[in-house]
Amino acid sequence: MTIKANDPSLKSWIEVPTDSDFPIQNIPFGIVSFGEGPKPATRIGNTVVDLSILADFGFFDELDIKDLSVFYEPVLNDFIALGKQARIAIRERLSELFCESCSELKTNEEACKLALKSIDEVEVLMPVAVGDYTDFYSSIEHATNVGIMFRDPDNALLPNWRHLPVGYHGRSSSIVVSGASIHRPKGQTKPNDEEPPVFGPSRLFDFELEMAFITSGQTSLGESISVDKAEDHIFGLVIFNDLSARDIQKWEYVPLGPFLSKSFGSVISPWVVTLEALEPFRVEGPNQEPEVFPYLKAHGKRNFDINLQVFIQPEKGEPSLVCRSNFKYMYWNMAQQLAHQTVNGCNINPGDMYASGTISGPTPDSYGSMLELSWRGTKPITLQDGSQRKFINDNDAIIMKGYAQNDKVRIGFGESVTKVLPANP
Amino acid sequence: MTIKANDPSLKSWIEVPTDSDFPIQNIPFGIVSFGEGPKPATRIGNTVVDLSILADFGFFDELDIKDLSVFYEPVLNDFIALGKQARIAIRERLSELFCESCSELKTNEEACKLALKSIDEVEVLMPVAVGDYTDFYSSIEHATNVGIMFRDPDNALLPNWRHLPVGYHGRSSSIVVSGASIHRPKGQTKPNDEEPPVFGPSRLFDFELEMAFITSGQTSLGESISVDKAEDHIFGLVIFNDLSARDIQKWEYVPLGPFLSKSFGSVISPWVVTLEALEPFRVEGPNQEPEVFPYLKAHGKRNFDINLQVFIQPEKGEPSLVCRSNFKYMYWNMAQQLAHQTVNGCNINPGDMYASGTISGPTPDSYGSMLELSWRGTKPITLQDGSQRKFINDNDAIIMKGYAQNDKVRIGFGESVTKVLPANP
Repeated sequence: MTIKANDPSLKSWIEVPTDSDFPIQNIPFGIVSFGEGPKPATRIGNTVVDLSILADFGFFDELDIKDLSVFYEPVLNDFIALGKQARIAIRERLSELFCESCSELKTNEEACKLALKSIDEVEVLMPVAVGDYTDFYSSIEHATNVGIMFRDPDNALLPNWRHLPVGYHGRSSSIVVSGASIHRPKGQTKPNDEEPPVFGPSRLFDFELEMAFITSGQTSLGESISVDKAEDHIFGLVIFNDLSARDIQKWEYVPLGPFLSKSFGSVISPWVVTLEALEPFRVEGPNQEPEVFPYLKAHGKRNFDINLQVFIQPEKGEPSLVCRSNFKYMYWNMAQQLAHQTVNGCNINPGDMYASGTISGPTPDSYGSMLELSWRGTKPITLQDGSQRKFINDNDAIIMKGYAQNDKVRIGFGESVTKVLPANP
Repeated sequence: MTIKANDPSLKSWIEVPTDSDFPIQNIPFGIVSFGEGPKPATRIGNTVVDLSILADFGFFDELDIKDLSVFYEPVLNDFIALGKQARIAIRERLSELFCESCSELKTNEEACKLALKSIDEVEVLMPVAVGDYTDFYSSIEHATNVGIMFRDPDNALLPNWRHLPVGYHGRSSSIVVSGASIHRPKGQTKPNDEEPPVFGPSRLFDFELEMAFITSGQTSLGESISVDKAEDHIFGLVIFNDLSARDIQKWEYVPLGPFLSKSFGSVISPWVVTLEALEPFRVEGPNQEPEVFPYLKAHGKRNFDINLQVFIQPEKGEPSLVCRSNFKYMYWNMAQQLAHQTVNGCNINPGDMYASGTISGPTPDSYGSMLELSWRGTKPITLQDGSQRKFINDNDAIIMKGYAQNDKVRIGFGESVTKVLPANP
């Protein structure tokens, strides 16, 4: 199927700055407040478009959408639940309306006045009510680095790692949108093996650079999704900052996994970029050896070439780039993750979120966490202002960016920005 | 504060069979379908009372409830969100309406005809839309048994166990209500250490006898709930059957915890028994040694004396009692669990569910899982029909019951019933 909205030659009558993450070929979906409560929206350049107004003016009337109320909901879940075909149709329609050759919206002054706002005038909100949230552990470079640091350099990967996409359930309530201020968590840690644990603010505050996909489908308990159909259940992707308190994690995680070391906050980018918009950026994933079970055999290009960056910005300084990675490094792809998640009959819902796990690349500057970048604190990172970081300081901001780019088009995610506040008293 | 609805001398004009779990002193909350969509309800004896009809007739008008729409919702979440004082007031009002000395409802033939149905005429549904779900691991007998079996009999408890209530996040979407049929999950297992993993139906299908509490409060990210205030955020309890595939669990759980071995289904009892109804059954918990951190120091009686039973019923046989345990055995109580869950600033919502972990007692007949009852398959259990079980067979039903009882009153939970079906092809 050709996706007309992806045509690199399309231009919009809405201004799109050079190198914008949001050209007419992107058309992501999000939730914004225009001062009157949350509304579904899209973004083009630095202009936010209120989809409820477009619905008011009948711009979606010719699409085969049963219930236009999805354009008025305070979260995208019902919109997402429309599924792949409706989403494609809506994106094609928006592309048409924004296209310079189309006068339909452009010449409707009243609609434009009501629907189009500058990004600076709106508040960008959480796009979905997250149902269930899973965090995978699918970067072989990350898992290997962690294995070298904490276990055995000669057997860094655990025996199950190459057989299944290891994952665990995380806390949905604490997933928040870019711009969040997150307090350093308090908790139990055991700084010294010979002494009892202590209680207080975490000293090893870290980020994890991840991407997350959001599911659109609903399945029944007992049903599995095949790896070849899995992508049909994926709505789109966001950048995911999986904040982690390494010292809390170390003391709590045996035997049932990370818990309070993660649940104090995770921060996503606000615009959900559809899988359709990312089609031009499909690439082959790494070779999987040993051969995986049939239920995990994904055919075709299932990885995506998405450049990822992490910056640390001290309170009164400029952002320093500390990591350049890429989503294409993932050993286990999204189709495999979703097939694995449901192979036991686990049901899914629209608005579930599935994070990749830390995305580290092969070189030290591509490691997706401070744990790896500073190699457990042994190699501090120097920022532009000359200050050093082993982990994240109070009042630092963590900025994550992501974009796919070829010689014709750039499809970006914007940012996930997290301000780290001191622990609450 | 005296809770009038708990007065053991109260009698109802609605018939309550001897030894019913649902005397007038219980007044649990649930969701039922009377053939016209899900409605909030309570149960007394074998009679289900539609709260929406009572609201229609104005029986709640004198209570200070801002929005009566909570009595018409398809799940209890908004009702639960009213909080402790409103819940107490509604329960007191219902007690009054059901009391033999009160003619208000009893003599209103039309209201009675519409609101009161036999339990046999209604379908009992999932009481809440579960937000986040945590599974704790708070029985010292269970953790010790597992440690003896899988680790070191001399150091059965891991170093962190007595310092914090170990827990992990679980899958909310697959929590379903009593009466569910759950397919045996498929997945990867590694039956033989020397050979590669295999894929197929789990061979070690187990139950875990647990209780779960549901929170009523909403907190902001960054906020913690003190151990002394924690119970104010608890709406009530249900029986929780945490189905577990032991062979899948063993292969997948290192290092990030149980995942697909749990997410194929968990089955709760349908009537949420309020914390108020359980007040008469408070008991001291076990002594905690070493002393816990101040944020976990719970004063007063925080455990509850609730008898728990598990039965296995073969397809064509009678139920056999295989376990008698008690919720009072918990080492970590609910107040401590919720204080721990939020000490890092993790936010909670009405409708979140927090399960206890397997509740094992001190004697072999009180172990809360087949893993422990059959001691990893080495001591098969003999059922009434002469058949033996190491784990659960296809077409077995697992029945869990729970009730608190003193010489004056019995407050029960009814049942959590799970039918186990063969794996899907």
